[in-house]
Amino acid sequence: MTDATAARLDRDDPLAGYRERFVGSEDSLVYFDGNSLGRPLRVTGDRLARFVEEEWGGRLIRGWDERWMDLPIAIGDELARITLGAGPGQTTIGDSTTVLLYKAMRAAVAARPGRAEIVLDRDNFPTDRYLAQGIAAELGVRLRWIDVDTSAGVTADQLAAAVGPDTALVVLSHVAYRSAWLADMPTLTAIAHDAGALVLWDLSHSVGSVPMQLDAWDVDLAVGCTYKYLNGGPGSPAFVYVAARHLADLVQPVQGWIGAADPFLMGPDYAPAEGIRRFLSGTPPILGMLAMQDMLALLDEAGMPAVRAKSEGLTGYAVQLAEELLGPAGVELASPADPERRGGHVTLNHPLMQAVTAALWQRDVIPDYRDPQGLRLGLSPLSTSYAEVRVGIEAIAEELVRAD
Amino acid sequence: MTDATAARLDRDDPLAGYRERFVGSEDSLVYFDGNSLGRPLRVTGDRLARFVEEEWGGRLIRGWDERWMDLPIAIGDELARITLGAGPGQTTIGDSTTVLLYKAMRAAVAARPGRAEIVLDRDNFPTDRYLAQGIAAELGVRLRWIDVDTSAGVTADQLAAAVGPDTALVVLSHVAYRSAWLADMPTLTAIAHDAGALVLWDLSHSVGSVPMQLDAWDVDLAVGCTYKYLNGGPGSPAFVYVAARHLADLVQPVQGWIGAADPFLMGPDYAPAEGIRRFLSGTPPILGMLAMQDMLALLDEAGMPAVRAKSEGLTGYAVQLAEELLGPAGVELASPADPERRGGHVTLNHPLMQAVTAALWQRDVIPDYRDPQGLRLGLSPLSTSYAEVRVGIEAIAEELVRAD
Repeated sequence: MTDATAARLDRDDPLAGYRERFVGSEDSLVYFDGNSLGRPLRVTGDRLARFVEEEWGGRLIRGWDERWMDLPIAIGDELARITLGAGPGQTTIGDSTTVLLYKAMRAAVAARPGRAEIVLDRDNFPTDRYLAQGIAAELGVRLRWIDVDTSAGVTADQLAAAVGPDTALVVLSHVAYRSAWLADMPTLTAIAHDAGALVLWDLSHSVGSVPMQLDAWDVDLAVGCTYKYLNGGPGSPAFVYVAARHLADLVQPVQGWIGAADPFLMGPDYAPAEGIRRFLSGTPPILGMLAMQDMLALLDEAGMPAVRAKSEGLTGYAVQLAEELLGPAGVELASPADPERRGGHVTLNHPLMQAVTAALWQRDVIPDYRDPQGLRLGLSPLSTSYAEVRVGIEAIAEELVRAD
Repeated sequence: MTDATAARLDRDDPLAGYRERFVGSEDSLVYFDGNSLGRPLRVTGDRLARFVEEEWGGRLIRGWDERWMDLPIAIGDELARITLGAGPGQTTIGDSTTVLLYKAMRAAVAARPGRAEIVLDRDNFPTDRYLAQGIAAELGVRLRWIDVDTSAGVTADQLAAAVGPDTALVVLSHVAYRSAWLADMPTLTAIAHDAGALVLWDLSHSVGSVPMQLDAWDVDLAVGCTYKYLNGGPGSPAFVYVAARHLADLVQPVQGWIGAADPFLMGPDYAPAEGIRRFLSGTPPILGMLAMQDMLALLDEAGMPAVRAKSEGLTGYAVQLAEELLGPAGVELASPADPERRGGHVTLNHPLMQAVTAALWQRDVIPDYRDPQGLRLGLSPLSTSYAEVRVGIEAIAEELVRAD
């Protein structure tokens, strides 16, 4: 493959035109970290400035009654429709991913009294593991760990062997943060349900790049990040999905006024709100949920199937180029070769990758590095071009030679 | 007193010039809700737009290493120096006020093993009460409630009678959200300490308008809101202060990667970070902590003693005008008459106040209403003029006549 291949792929890409809507797409910088922090859209800065002048400054406290109080669930519903395959009333923007995972885990364990085990895998994202450890200690439940091949994920057989009558909750990531392994969500969910357990899916590394059907797949709970493929900006608030059938029974422990049945009654006792609002605690972070609306509109316009097709195209091209240009140097693919089982990023292993990543940053090629030896290419579908993939992987080849 | 009095007070006000730095100060709207949502500064919209273009869009993921990772504690240190009377390394911007109160309560109760009681008052803000109820239920500790005169707060005698060898934690508000009662923080803290208990102060309704000396007053923990007198924007993230002497021993339960000793190690087990970072859980909400920096700079420029003097001037003027213009209609002052015991707002009780508040909003006079019959005048010192107070209270007088 030559540069002409990248040019042809970009020419034939029906979504190529979206790239110029992002800040900085005119620069020569090669950005492979859209799965850690998505680029802002060009319209976002103006949206924020206008919000300050017109909504915050103009409406002041009235903004809560007029629009902001409903915004977490209004955006949640849009996010659910566009990216989650879920109906309204089950999703809200809330706190950080960590805090929402905490609330969801706590609520789920409490909903399975008499069951004393949380099942999860050793390669899940650190926050998920740390939270589960803390919750296990505070509630006196056990953790059952599944060992996984770090270039893959939890298999159906592994999960079936791990769950049982004592399993309260299974915690899994839809796309693994290192390998990009794409879990079979409907199959794994059904296995947990067969054991009478609930499942909490962490969607942080999939939402906005991998389509899903949470309602049809009978998912119980899910939490996801909005600053990766949803371009909400650094530290933008996360979302939580709770299936409608569970909403009356799941209660989370951080009881704040916004999650109370009548927030303005300010009465003596807390009673959780009907519906998904019960998963809120404090005043919704309105400023932080503005930017993600621009990206959701873009994903809606492009359509998630087309976004996924572009994502598979980008990761497939990266895998091919890596084999051709980096394979001879001993670089190994640490992500699934099968595009059906691969999320939106590609991880390439080599003992020198930490040094290579540092050298690449110096020349404005920005991948990420994850221990023990993985260089991670996050290829955000709407803001990444095939030419960028080509230039970036050639740079990796050069830096591998230099670091050797 | 006549309009000329207001004009003279504004003319003599050394801080009068600050008002024009806020969005909308040129409008005729009378804003009495700066204690619920402070006005944005004129520089804030541009700061946000520039952040999107230059920092988020320009630095992308590199922004974390370069500046954002340290920002919660850097802003926390500034906030501590300017408004809390506290040295560095003890304060961080974090989650919502509710979530930080939850973490602080949980950490404090765990630090007093063998003590099974949380002491708080029935007039504390609903979130504080609801959280304590939830935590009491989950940890099996008791709540000991102090009944207070709703136009006052917890007295030294009341607290001394309530605490004892079984008290783990006392939860108090520095300024009461309804009455504006300003608690005697050093005295009450000492009483709790004499019983061996820790104290958690909720500073939401005081920070940025009432000076304090958390270090000198030997405070243990404090949490406060940044969208009231710190003008951080709707739902901006809150802050938590933990005295340096407690930092090694206090551990909060929401164990996320950012609060871990080495966030990028991503190892198998959670160990809390040294220092105040252990109170963080998820990725810091950077976009949400931009605006408050503009207000902190303004408070630093004006100086908290001058801000407090202006605040006492405004609330004193409001109290005088209310007596003169509203007293004959049966309006009662529900805030302390003594300015030394009064925070930055004034609450006026009358059976018709709910209807009066609604009518005032229709004519662009914006106070707040709190059950059972309180109209609340939040007089943010740097963005409120004496003329505004005069116009607003005259409007209340007119609407009281109309509603009667």
